[in-house]
Amino acid sequence: MKQHDDLFESMSIAALQARYRDGSLTPAQVVEAIAARTSGDDPHRAWIRPLSRDEMMRHVDALAGRDIEALPLYGIPFAIKDNIDLAGIPTTAACPAYAYTPDKSAAVVQRLIAAGAIPIGKTNLDQFATGLSGQRSPHGACRNALDPRYASGGSSSGSAVSVALGLAAFSLGTDTAGSGRVPAAFHGLIGLKPTRGVLSTLGVVPACKSLDCVSIFARSANDAQRVFEVARGVAEADPYAREFEPLMQPHPLRPSPQHAPDPVTRESVPPASQSSLRGVRFGVPRADQLEFFGDTSYAQAFDTALTRLREAGAELIEIDFEPFLATARLLYEGPWVAERLAAIREFVETQPDALHPVIREIIGGAARWSAADVFAAFDRLAVLRMEASQVWQQIDAIVTPTSATTATVDQLEADPIRVNSRFGYYTNFVNLLDLSALAVPAGVCTSGAHAGLPFGITFVARAHQDVMLLDLARAWLGETACEQQSLVPAAPTSANGAENTSRDSDATELCLGESHDRH
Amino acid sequence: MKQHDDLFESMSIAALQARYRDGSLTPAQVVEAIAARTSGDDPHRAWIRPLSRDEMMRHVDALAGRDIEALPLYGIPFAIKDNIDLAGIPTTAACPAYAYTPDKSAAVVQRLIAAGAIPIGKTNLDQFATGLSGQRSPHGACRNALDPRYASGGSSSGSAVSVALGLAAFSLGTDTAGSGRVPAAFHGLIGLKPTRGVLSTLGVVPACKSLDCVSIFARSANDAQRVFEVARGVAEADPYAREFEPLMQPHPLRPSPQHAPDPVTRESVPPASQSSLRGVRFGVPRADQLEFFGDTSYAQAFDTALTRLREAGAELIEIDFEPFLATARLLYEGPWVAERLAAIREFVETQPDALHPVIREIIGGAARWSAADVFAAFDRLAVLRMEASQVWQQIDAIVTPTSATTATVDQLEADPIRVNSRFGYYTNFVNLLDLSALAVPAGVCTSGAHAGLPFGITFVARAHQDVMLLDLARAWLGETACEQQSLVPAAPTSANGAENTSRDSDATELCLGESHDRH
Repeated sequence: MKQHDDLFESMSIAALQARYRDGSLTPAQVVEAIAARTSGDDPHRAWIRPLSRDEMMRHVDALAGRDIEALPLYGIPFAIKDNIDLAGIPTTAACPAYAYTPDKSAAVVQRLIAAGAIPIGKTNLDQFATGLSGQRSPHGACRNALDPRYASGGSSSGSAVSVALGLAAFSLGTDTAGSGRVPAAFHGLIGLKPTRGVLSTLGVVPACKSLDCVSIFARSANDAQRVFEVARGVAEADPYAREFEPLMQPHPLRPSPQHAPDPVTRESVPPASQSSLRGVRFGVPRADQLEFFGDTSYAQAFDTALTRLREAGAELIEIDFEPFLATARLLYEGPWVAERLAAIREFVETQPDALHPVIREIIGGAARWSAADVFAAFDRLAVLRMEASQVWQQIDAIVTPTSATTATVDQLEADPIRVNSRFGYYTNFVNLLDLSALAVPAGVCTSGAHAGLPFGITFVARAHQDVMLLDLARAWLGETACEQQSLVPAAPTSANGAENTSRDSDATELCLGESHDRH
Repeated sequence: MKQHDDLFESMSIAALQARYRDGSLTPAQVVEAIAARTSGDDPHRAWIRPLSRDEMMRHVDALAGRDIEALPLYGIPFAIKDNIDLAGIPTTAACPAYAYTPDKSAAVVQRLIAAGAIPIGKTNLDQFATGLSGQRSPHGACRNALDPRYASGGSSSGSAVSVALGLAAFSLGTDTAGSGRVPAAFHGLIGLKPTRGVLSTLGVVPACKSLDCVSIFARSANDAQRVFEVARGVAEADPYAREFEPLMQPHPLRPSPQHAPDPVTRESVPPASQSSLRGVRFGVPRADQLEFFGDTSYAQAFDTALTRLREAGAELIEIDFEPFLATARLLYEGPWVAERLAAIREFVETQPDALHPVIREIIGGAARWSAADVFAAFDRLAVLRMEASQVWQQIDAIVTPTSATTATVDQLEADPIRVNSRFGYYTNFVNLLDLSALAVPAGVCTSGAHAGLPFGITFVARAHQDVMLLDLARAWLGETACEQQSLVPAAPTSANGAENTSRDSDATELCLGESHDRH
């Protein structure tokens, strides 16, 4: 299989499908190459259950005679966090005693497979998706694909690692408090945390049922969008499902008819060669509301990112971040932990010793909250949501660091709860406030303790703005990785969110490939 | 003041304003007449704090020089449930120890007064709006205006009684589990329970903050709509406020453009003289899901109402009412009682003896619910909401009895919690499922233990369907009280919900006057 080892350097939807089309590669060859790797050692502890060659090959066989043009994910290998059902394979949520073998795949997995995607395995996670570190698993702490001394981030740990290693073109995670974003930041990946309910959570082990989202890791915004468009859709019998309504807010990169460019001067359209984020209003937390926990690596990297955003034409608007921070505190210091308990209560009560010690400690904390506390917290959240909505009136998106810092596995093991919580400083508020979020790479740290490691920023917007965020990411990645080559004009997405992103995938792949090399 | 005693027989917005316009009556005369009545005995226990003549007269003075045509509620007297703030007058929620005197009126009260309405007093209620009977007040059980042996219904007890007695043209209640509907049924009144958040609850003592609605009692659908249009609007700093979005659903009485009538034959428009509810699809609970607690009075009256609906051209569709009943049980048997505790926790903990014994027993029950129980109940509610949404696909509205039965004050005092809960059988689900509801009179019971007492039905629809419900009520009242004289063609309401209902107010008054006489 040696001849296909280059696969892992350029694993992407567009790259694979281009080679399938020109006949230089087949899905069976891809599966052989992946199986050769995932059946061996797993030094990163990325996998709980990689699929065998034969298990994968059954999905390849199902593609026989199918038209690549009719299957948007034809032959695309993907990894699945092990709290998401894949038919016939145990779902464990990283708790072996909890394991069950589902008859049916989760609704999103069904959609992806129906579109031609090939599952390659179930990935390691913080047990019951409770954590942001990747360290809380009986299968061992999941280690960073770029530097194994470091945390992978979590809870969607192995899913991020599998993409960072090039074994999967994309992967599914889940994101309740940041689990689909923090691991993306730690690996220089795209991490899409879609609008709540737009990707079905049917067939997903719940963490906080009312907040859980299925998330997507990918190496480009285009790949993430391709997966998003295939995966989304209201699943029957999903009480949390919502229709995707992308037109609820104006799109800053697509002037509305009343603000259309003058047909002669076209002045309001940014030239492709220049400022691709021109006119986009990013809210940035007030300086005293930023937090980096001592080390300067991330502070410096965020400053650099802001400078680049400004250079790309974005307008940076200082916002009062307090409503968002207060919401984040409400999630981690408030009664929502009882929603985690409610989801697995019978299991916790009958087999408490089956839990990872850190998870047992966290979920045990649910007992101190009363029913009245929950209602008081909901009331507080209503006030914070109102305060946050005032902030949204001035901006299109918020930009923050994705994580406030990073840490080694040893540091996490020494102080698992406190260090973990630092990762969520900028992520915890998103689902409680019903927002969409996209973690994007922002180069590497150039100074401080974490120099050489990737740094990531997150664009946050209101619900249903997922495609707008992907548009911003395309513009951003074009700016930073491709010498001002804006991808926005080349990447029009239809107003109804329909999929039409294939044209410029190669260009973005190139950018991300370059960006990735620097790590 | 004798010469204006006829006022109380025909108290309505349209009737009063007609007399103001022709000069036969002035707001000052109305206030004098009301003060003469409310300053005396209060055998029904309707009032906690009637305003004095002078207090009312200050509002009359504020109308000096104002144009009646510019003030939609010019000189209209209204009563306010004593859990809603009126500036300068104590708010007690029927708990004297809880009393405070607000500087500002509640947001809705401000709007009504700004439109010319005259507050006449604060009305009796089930303490902290916890109850459907009117019996749980330290000011005495509120007695039915039509037969004082009977319960007024609650918790908006005195507000219904004040309108039934003709002292107020309309009144404000609140409705969390049915408190704006049950007292309407017991008095043959209209009771509008608007879409949650459309009338601000700013300045209202909370019961269950996330569910509370301000409600409107009136003697006609037109009066209720006039008040609704004035009172609604997003109040600044109200975290529960929502914009009114009346166009979210098709209106069964107004064919959409693609189903517009043939301009020549006009066949799809019901002739005004015939079936005014033609084509409206009412969901009716399956026979085995109806409950009347033994007595046949209400069962018989509901049968009669269904027959009349059918005669008016409505299509009656049997529905599975179980998702709605299960939701109702969730509210009364589940952890939402802890939301009541959360709202007044400090008071309850420091002055438990200040509570009415029944309220103390109910709110004390909150202690048995944990935080995890609340999240489990929310998850159950999400499932029920999904199941209910499937029912809505086949129907425009649900019709049920408003209350399952009625009771005397003595019966309630003998068994206060169980008898009270019967009144909520058909009301408790509405706010948890985010629905709009309108209680409408449906004649009197003609048989059984409650013969001669009014019977009421409720139309329930999805959120933002408030005006549609009022349209149905106009058609319904035209049918039953005015010998097939449909009011629908005469009462067009603009599609954006703007107010234009004054034209046919007199006709509806007449209907309601007749209907009322039969009680």
